[in-house]
Amino acid sequence: MPALFEKHRPLLEQAIAAARSRANWSAYPESQSPKIYGEDAKANADNAFEALKGKPFDLPGHPGGKHVGGEVSPYGFALGVTYPQAEVDVLVAASKAAGAKWGAASPEERAGVLLEIIARINRASFLMAHAVMHTSGQAYSMAFQAGGPHAQDRALEAVAYAFDEMSRVPGAVRWSKQTGKDQVTTLDKTFRIVPRGVALVIGCATFPTWNTYPGMFASLATGNTVIVKPHPGAILPLALTLGIAREALAEAGFDPNVVLLAPDTIDRPLTKELALHPGIGIIDFTGSPVFGAWVRENAKGKLVYTEEAGLNSIVIASTDNFRAMATNIAFSLTLYSGQMCTAPQNIFVPAGGIETDQGHKSFDEVADAIKSGIDKLLADPDRASAFLGAVQSEATAQRVKEAAKLGRVVRSSDSPVYSAAPGARTASPIILAVDAADEPAYMAERFGPISFVIAVRDGGDGIARAAAAARQHGAISAALYATDEATIDRAIGAFAEAGVTLSINLTGGVFVNQNAAFSDFHVTGANPAGNACLTDAAFVSNRFRVVGTKRQVAA
Amino acid sequence: MPALFEKHRPLLEQAIAAARSRANWSAYPESQSPKIYGEDAKANADNAFEALKGKPFDLPGHPGGKHVGGEVSPYGFALGVTYPQAEVDVLVAASKAAGAKWGAASPEERAGVLLEIIARINRASFLMAHAVMHTSGQAYSMAFQAGGPHAQDRALEAVAYAFDEMSRVPGAVRWSKQTGKDQVTTLDKTFRIVPRGVALVIGCATFPTWNTYPGMFASLATGNTVIVKPHPGAILPLALTLGIAREALAEAGFDPNVVLLAPDTIDRPLTKELALHPGIGIIDFTGSPVFGAWVRENAKGKLVYTEEAGLNSIVIASTDNFRAMATNIAFSLTLYSGQMCTAPQNIFVPAGGIETDQGHKSFDEVADAIKSGIDKLLADPDRASAFLGAVQSEATAQRVKEAAKLGRVVRSSDSPVYSAAPGARTASPIILAVDAADEPAYMAERFGPISFVIAVRDGGDGIARAAAAARQHGAISAALYATDEATIDRAIGAFAEAGVTLSINLTGGVFVNQNAAFSDFHVTGANPAGNACLTDAAFVSNRFRVVGTKRQVAA
Repeated sequence: MPALFEKHRPLLEQAIAAARSRANWSAYPESQSPKIYGEDAKANADNAFEALKGKPFDLPGHPGGKHVGGEVSPYGFALGVTYPQAEVDVLVAASKAAGAKWGAASPEERAGVLLEIIARINRASFLMAHAVMHTSGQAYSMAFQAGGPHAQDRALEAVAYAFDEMSRVPGAVRWSKQTGKDQVTTLDKTFRIVPRGVALVIGCATFPTWNTYPGMFASLATGNTVIVKPHPGAILPLALTLGIAREALAEAGFDPNVVLLAPDTIDRPLTKELALHPGIGIIDFTGSPVFGAWVRENAKGKLVYTEEAGLNSIVIASTDNFRAMATNIAFSLTLYSGQMCTAPQNIFVPAGGIETDQGHKSFDEVADAIKSGIDKLLADPDRASAFLGAVQSEATAQRVKEAAKLGRVVRSSDSPVYSAAPGARTASPIILAVDAADEPAYMAERFGPISFVIAVRDGGDGIARAAAAARQHGAISAALYATDEATIDRAIGAFAEAGVTLSINLTGGVFVNQNAAFSDFHVTGANPAGNACLTDAAFVSNRFRVVGTKRQVAA
Repeated sequence: MPALFEKHRPLLEQAIAAARSRANWSAYPESQSPKIYGEDAKANADNAFEALKGKPFDLPGHPGGKHVGGEVSPYGFALGVTYPQAEVDVLVAASKAAGAKWGAASPEERAGVLLEIIARINRASFLMAHAVMHTSGQAYSMAFQAGGPHAQDRALEAVAYAFDEMSRVPGAVRWSKQTGKDQVTTLDKTFRIVPRGVALVIGCATFPTWNTYPGMFASLATGNTVIVKPHPGAILPLALTLGIAREALAEAGFDPNVVLLAPDTIDRPLTKELALHPGIGIIDFTGSPVFGAWVRENAKGKLVYTEEAGLNSIVIASTDNFRAMATNIAFSLTLYSGQMCTAPQNIFVPAGGIETDQGHKSFDEVADAIKSGIDKLLADPDRASAFLGAVQSEATAQRVKEAAKLGRVVRSSDSPVYSAAPGARTASPIILAVDAADEPAYMAERFGPISFVIAVRDGGDGIARAAAAARQHGAISAALYATDEATIDRAIGAFAEAGVTLSINLTGGVFVNQNAAFSDFHVTGANPAGNACLTDAAFVSNRFRVVGTKRQVAA
């Protein structure tokens, strides 16, 4: 067994077991504790981030004559980092060349190298936090967790699924059959895992690592080489990732071009050229439904895995913990200014109000409790920054500004000023009250901190409307508050049919936005929010093929 | 556990183990022995087949006002059987309605019913042999084996893979996490297997059961309902299959419309209308590359699995058993008149001849040895019938007639007359000698008993050309004869890269045409001969999705 595989094998086995049991498990600590990451880890990362600014990013040996890059931190300054850019043909050729040895390596060899890469990425989590924060706009703590350990867990999960899947194919078997009265024919059969070729992974601006790692590591583990096309606004986290990966690959004796960066700019995007290149066999895409549809329809003959977007709903039918429910929902709406793919947008509440542990609450009282929850979270702007973070794009900020006309304003959005980053682009959640009939307002994705409290007939009506929205427009999350089992059963059936994970009665420290690696199937692939789940067996099993050899054994 | 599942569980577990080990295993005996199938089985089936002729086929409760059908046996008579035909909208609606209960059943319930169905199909193997023989043209013995037990093995294999894949998803788990200093949040999570919806399986005329069962049973096992669209020339084997399945489904308390037949005629084909219907979520297709390409390009947003066709090659570099090699190849070319998707077409032989255990053999001597092998097999027309069978379509017979102009005729085709079926449409193999440069002749699929012996520079040249043909046009099988390890290694690498299973030095009772269930990965999905393998994890894992529910447990 290869040494790196032996080194990381216990972790891989734990990961495979975790994905089977789906109980709470994580490989990489989400705590920033110096006891885990080292006394100097944070300070060193602060310095390392400053040193990266304003310079060409160093990716030794990476093809590309010129450097491009125009990232601007949502916290109000230009990063000034540039990255080597090669023509698409050059990238694909370099990727193919690197693929000969990588594709011929054993699943164990590849898993060993990949787990070493993830371990090194883990050690760089504080620097990654800066990179993710200043591209996505996430608050530092969230950037550390979601961009660091949680993303690393997803990478490990992809390797675990891929390894598990490949392990089910035996390398060799002796096959014998009576083929005549006095004749037995014996064949020595071998089965070789063969990759698809070159994989393209198209990243997004809001979760540049968390959403990119599953496809990237799934393709790598199954023997494909990978070209990463980051969002032009969030290149740095993936450049850091690839720098670490390329170094580890070279140390292990592989061509570092097994992973390549394809940075582009908003003025001259490369994504379509890459996606249509005949040398690309697999595409993983995270981004808008419009571009997702383009990829799905135009990348003919390629394997395409997409995570797009949808209309996530909460249905409030009744609750036995009104206060905690409002706080929980308020947090979900506030976290990263509603820029998570799992953030709720539509909250269905009976027009006549609901029964609660505090007695009957009217529609307005429910809406107001959520508003108050947000107000409380954001009362102190500097504390607010840790929840809200910054708004990734100007388009989202603009969308929030224009949202007030979509309904009766329950809570208006403002732009808190953070003392540590006065130039940050910020927007607190706007909440609008509408009637169920106002579909043009709420039956479209309003990406960002925009939500609707929608008056419906009753809980069942809310469930039906939320499930229909998921079927038609897609959804990645859904939540229900209800105290009676009949309503809960109804919701379970309706959302299962609509292909949405349903969270029920969340009032504690878990939020509808959160999908845990190794436990939750993130995106189901069963509604328009995406055609695949990150990560399950179907996400990995088609990235490789098996080619057999049958050799007759002399009688 | 459901009773039917318990009844068939040992067999299912054996099948799962066999698919893992890939050693020789079969669930359903390929021997026609009365000890296995019963003393009267064959005679009863003969009578049953006669009773089916010239009548409407009885499928109780099947939708469809009118009856259609125009099958003509390649052995020279019209079957005269007609089948209920419903409009596409009616079929899809009936399938959806049946899907509610079928999709909600547990994987165990479904597996139990499906294994019961396969067991009953097995008991009908003699009748199935008649149905397959008189639609595909296969000889009776082959129709019994390939259309009966071997096809049933493939069905079981699909159920085994699907069940294994679904078993990896736990039904429920309790998930707990420290979510605050003094807070643990606990969620009860459940995971529900959700089908894609309605699956369409498009059958072919040459292997109506063997090629249809994998997609059909994979979709059924994962909770989808299935509409089977047989080739208009080979409806009866699938009508028999569905008749048995519908009866068993009804007995188990399910709507028999879980499986539906969509017969059509050459004059009014229904395939495109079915494939484009928005209610169809999965399509399995076996047939020509032209129609396969149409399905792949037009069935947008659906899961599409195809087995199309390709250029299968044999490369002869050297041999230590010249006589047995020639006999083995002769049999491969003769079996079912070259109408297997695995039948070789192109035989690459060095222009300067090869070294053998009988000394040097010239190019012409190699070609002649193969010709002689065929002549010997076919010397007695009545014995010949057992190997050749009949030619399924007039187009193939015509293609053979026109093939002589494609090269120098090494062996000409004739039409043996079988005393038991003087009206059979027959064609013995034609062999043409060509130069490697004559690509227009041999670099296109010539479906039927047409093969080329192609003069190449040496074994390496042959390997390169055969592998290139596979990459460009697809291939499902490849064979090599070579005595030196360097040539063997070269071929293993080249055909692995081209995504073709390679058979080496077959001189015994196994032929390059044969792919064994539970052992060989039939079609790799890695070249244009098909986009999927029948059957592997990737063939089943995307036919269902997993939808989770997370319910907070009171602290």
